[in-house]
Amino acid sequence: MVGIIMGSLSDRKIMQEAADVLTELQVPFELEIVSAHRTPDRMFDYAQSARDRGLKVIIAGAGGAAHLPGMVASLTTLPVIGVPILSSNSIDGWDSVLSILQMPGGVPVATVALNGAKNAGILAAQIVGAFDQELAERLLAYKQQLKVKVAEMNAELKK
Amino acid sequence: MVGIIMGSLSDRKIMQEAADVLTELQVPFELEIVSAHRTPDRMFDYAQSARDRGLKVIIAGAGGAAHLPGMVASLTTLPVIGVPILSSNSIDGWDSVLSILQMPGGVPVATVALNGAKNAGILAAQIVGAFDQELAERLLAYKQQLKVKVAEMNAELKK
Amino acid sequence: MVGIIMGSLSDRKIMQEAADVLTELQVPFELEIVSAHRTPDRMFDYAQSARDRGLKVIIAGAGGAAHLPGMVASLTTLPVIGVPILSSNSIDGWDSVLSILQMPGGVPVATVALNGAKNAGILAAQIVGAFDQELAERLLAYKQQLKVKVAEMNAELKK
Amino acid sequence: MVGIIMGSLSDRKIMQEAADVLTELQVPFELEIVSAHRTPDRMFDYAQSARDRGLKVIIAGAGGAAHLPGMVASLTTLPVIGVPILSSNSIDGWDSVLSILQMPGGVPVATVALNGAKNAGILAAQIVGAFDQELAERLLAYKQQLKVKVAEMNAELKK
Amino acid sequence: MVGIIMGSLSDRKIMQEAADVLTELQVPFELEIVSAHRTPDRMFDYAQSARDRGLKVIIAGAGGAAHLPGMVASLTTLPVIGVPILSSNSIDGWDSVLSILQMPGGVPVATVALNGAKNAGILAAQIVGAFDQELAERLLAYKQQLKVKVAEMNAELKK
Amino acid sequence: MVGIIMGSLSDRKIMQEAADVLTELQVPFELEIVSAHRTPDRMFDYAQSARDRGLKVIIAGAGGAAHLPGMVASLTTLPVIGVPILSSNSIDGWDSVLSILQMPGGVPVATVALNGAKNAGILAAQIVGAFDQELAERLLAYKQQLKVKVAEMNAELKK
Amino acid sequence: MVGIIMGSLSDRKIMQEAADVLTELQVPFELEIVSAHRTPDRMFDYAQSARDRGLKVIIAGAGGAAHLPGMVASLTTLPVIGVPILSSNSIDGWDSVLSILQMPGGVPVATVALNGAKNAGILAAQIVGAFDQELAERLLAYKQQLKVKVAEMNAELKK
Amino acid sequence: MVGIIMGSLSDRKIMQEAADVLTELQVPFELEIVSAHRTPDRMFDYAQSARDRGLKVIIAGAGGAAHLPGMVASLTTLPVIGVPILSSNSIDGWDSVLSILQMPGGVPVATVALNGAKNAGILAAQIVGAFDQELAERLLAYKQQLKVKVAEMNAELKK
Repeated sequence: MVGIIMGSLSDRKIMQEAADVLTELQVPFELEIVSAHRTPDRMFDYAQSARDRGLKVIIAGAGGAAHLPGMVASLTTLPVIGVPILSSNSIDGWDSVLSILQMPGGVPVATVALNGAKNAGILAAQIVGAFDQELAERLLAYKQQLKVKVAEMNAELKK
Repeated sequence: MVGIIMGSLSDRKIMQEAADVLTELQVPFELEIVSAHRTPDRMFDYAQSARDRGLKVIIAGAGGAAHLPGMVASLTTLPVIGVPILSSNSIDGWDSVLSILQMPGGVPVATVALNGAKNAGILAAQIVGAFDQELAERLLAYKQQLKVKVAEMNAELKK
Repeated sequence: MVGIIMGSLSDRKIMQEAADVLTELQVPFELEIVSAHRTPDRMFDYAQSARDRGLKVIIAGAGGAAHLPGMVASLTTLPVIGVPILSSNSIDGWDSVLSILQMPGGVPVATVALNGAKNAGILAAQIVGAFDQELAERLLAYKQQLKVKVAEMNAELKK
Repeated sequence: MVGIIMGSLSDRKIMQEAADVLTELQVPFELEIVSAHRTPDRMFDYAQSARDRGLKVIIAGAGGAAHLPGMVASLTTLPVIGVPILSSNSIDGWDSVLSILQMPGGVPVATVALNGAKNAGILAAQIVGAFDQELAERLLAYKQQLKVKVAEMNAELKK
Repeated sequence: MVGIIMGSLSDRKIMQEAADVLTELQVPFELEIVSAHRTPDRMFDYAQSARDRGLKVIIAGAGGAAHLPGMVASLTTLPVIGVPILSSNSIDGWDSVLSILQMPGGVPVATVALNGAKNAGILAAQIVGAFDQELAERLLAYKQQLKVKVAEMNAELKK
Repeated sequence: MVGIIMGSLSDRKIMQEAADVLTELQVPFELEIVSAHRTPDRMFDYAQSARDRGLKVIIAGAGGAAHLPGMVASLTTLPVIGVPILSSNSIDGWDSVLSILQMPGGVPVATVALNGAKNAGILAAQIVGAFDQELAERLLAYKQQLKVKVAEMNAELKK
Repeated sequence: MVGIIMGSLSDRKIMQEAADVLTELQVPFELEIVSAHRTPDRMFDYAQSARDRGLKVIIAGAGGAAHLPGMVASLTTLPVIGVPILSSNSIDGWDSVLSILQMPGGVPVATVALNGAKNAGILAAQIVGAFDQELAERLLAYKQQLKVKVAEMNAELKK
Repeated sequence: MVGIIMGSLSDRKIMQEAADVLTELQVPFELEIVSAHRTPDRMFDYAQSARDRGLKVIIAGAGGAAHLPGMVASLTTLPVIGVPILSSNSIDGWDSVLSILQMPGGVPVATVALNGAKNAGILAAQIVGAFDQELAERLLAYKQQLKVKVAEMNAELKK
């Protein structure tokens, strides 16, 4: 079970891609809005109860001074994947990226690319898949699809 | 009473400047290490009890993915001043600056310059001094001193 | 009483958010255009008379090589909040941010996020609210509203 | 079993921190030099055989135009953790960070902070620990130690 | 013969400019989609067989964490020209530029400007033209045309 | 007559290069410390009296949130040359550069390179020299010297 | 007489603002397209004959790797004003700014803000006006107008 | 024959690496100081006569507002390799990189990494080697050496 959280409903457009790829890979997940700055208590509860509720990985998306992934990581021993989101008034996404990536020693966040929610979903699946042979095979099939798409694009290019 | 907090003992060298200028301006303060990522519970307690303990302003210094000022701001209605610290492995201080400055709407942090703990102390004094005429006069005297120093530098330059 | 100033009428769209949130929090304010580069004399008069006119905090918004917040701060002992505005021909807002944030020792500016006028208003209210229990309670209620909005967004998400 | 690879012997000073924390957390690992640009064939073999050799996670450190983590990720379905290293002639580490972080959709790399090998080790342990209760407890104990250290620093500060 | 490769069909709009200028300069070329991350095996084969298939120069365009030019360069002794492409979710193109430009000692990539596929085509022609007098003359004529266009623009300006 | 001003005695090491090249080119100058933030009144007087005191050009050096050149430019119709200085706690000089360069329409500052005080001196001499034939000839001789130095370096290289 | 040059007809939209303000200030000027990279010979002739043709200042606008202002400056003793232009495929204007601003010791370029052609025109007028009392008075009147506009904006704001 | 030029004797320390690797690969070269800004005439002569003197490739190194590679490229149809050099007062090398890389359409410069003179030498050899089978074999042997070094480093690591 993967937990997907985001700071605001406006982040959903991006974060839905994580949900979609997990659906495609048949990995169960839950989706919540949890804001580090507006609902700090709720964030505490979410993070501290995550392992006991059976989560294996948490994906947290946030923009600007994005504290959600790092704070959740400080409150659980589960792996936390951070998705920097390019929000309005962001300085080209640098704020989102750096405030998620540059965590101090002791509290890692597995950061993916700007708006990279799809990759966050795949990474979560890879983490589960390291211990689940059937999922590993679905991941391999997913990789094969990527190759097929390149072949199709080549056919299109040659036309 | 001003609360000065920092994420690590290694931040003290910088943050001491806030304490020193508050001492000079006769503003009482307390000094603590509170880490957003290593002691999140303690940070909660510190921030949520701050007003009741009589604090008027909180100065929080942190480096890298610096979440302390913003998280404290999410947990109190007191003004919070953030000091971005240039820590080791920082990317030129950009991470510290952006993860403190770029707070979302609703939860401001009053950010000062990189390593600008001295200015954080002065700003805290200005906030208190807006409601304390005697402190306001000490701040004015402090401003006069700055002018005197420039005059002395000019004398030195003309030698 | 809070003073809100900006360098140009084109900054109004952003700076109005500071006025709106102060209205919501029932903090009186005045709104003026004062340009550091086009009306330096007027800026001097504004800043030097601010305390005597009863202001407690000044919010100054400016873009590009944004000198208004820092120059006003050099001319008063009141706390000055700087709002970096993303103006046309700005280099992604970096110029606005850095020329407000990176003030030298002795003259702080409380900088908020790029285009963060709303947060400037809240910060001004927090400064006044540190010495005004009724305002503090309105700020607490404002914080509660933020939580309620997150709960509403969650309900929307689950639909 | 965690695989730790790096592009050059000069990266060892940083990458050793991943090995050390894995040792502390009692997670077995192997350590190799594999260069994307100088030994591409070896990188292929390493990545493609990783799962069959029993690896659960790969940690890859590289600097400059750092292609090792991303290329390894393209060749395995295991989770790959990337450590951007600040190498000589790097442009402040931006090259290392961006060429590891900004992977295209389909091929994630779990990126940690610049020179953040220690966090890469902890993250690898968290990934394994999500499926290993005993390791999870060691991780919890590690988190407790971080709190103890902050308490010790506070005692030191108050002296 | 020049080989033009790109990571995705979406890069074609940019990379077509390389093809067009090579057509104009009468330099034969081939055009393929080869993805470092989705078709690593194909990339290996392409690069390792390039010299034997008669290619003299390879032009590789890619965006984000752009590994294609550097990886191809690691697999051939032919000169490789890299075109950083401003892809969606790129951080202003910095990721594309730095992950192509900042290659380690031993494995150069001849990097051109962001989206500079036209210049990549001209550079490829200059490389061939250094050993082909007729092509050199066509390049000289091309340079003359640039001058003529400036003269025409001046006539337009003076109107 | 050229006026050279700087915000602090610590800027002298850099700004002396402007004085030295003006001495070499036999252009009279005066040297003063004038701080925008610590002595705003003095800055006003300096700038507003500059033309009447016979100055033709003002060179102003400052670091961090560098407001001196722009504020002086707002107070005089003389050309103002700005020298961004890399001060301590500067963010790599970007703050100094952007807060001098990015002046709004109506109030230009002639910005030179980071720490480029020597070039500021030459530029001031070029401005005066545009209306002074003898100085123009000294500038031409200066340019000749640059060529001679390159020839000497070539001789050294060939040894 | 002021010379205005630009690298391409596409720069005209920006550079026309320099011409317009010079017209307004009654300073004669000429307007030409001169490309450093496409018409280097013409650039040499233009720069080397500029003083003899009676020019007092040269304004040069260019984008990307913008070599025109610096190369012209290397070929004349007249003051050269550089206008960094945000061209298509520019990396946010940084390339234009840095390749004009960061000239080596000995060869200054008076750089203005990104797209700051209007300020380049005013700066050119200020340079001439330092030696022309009537123009100085027109510049003073121009400054007065800026104040009047701020007053008008204030009236608009108060409505 | 490869031409290696640089703007100043101080660039030699970096540029010597290009000469050394060309020596190792047995590619003849010449080494000169040619400054775009101090000896523009000499630069013109050098570039315009390069092909007739038998050069096949030109390597040009420069720092700051680095115009040498681009201007030489505008004056010859030979391929020009640009080496951005991190000079003193450079802004972290960004100025050198961007003023060489971001050339306008029509005039390419083959840019290598910051201080990447060694790679410039290898790239020049690859260009010549595309048309010289013996050199191509030496390049292949050079690539083999890189692999051997990695194997040696691995042996060292395992000790």
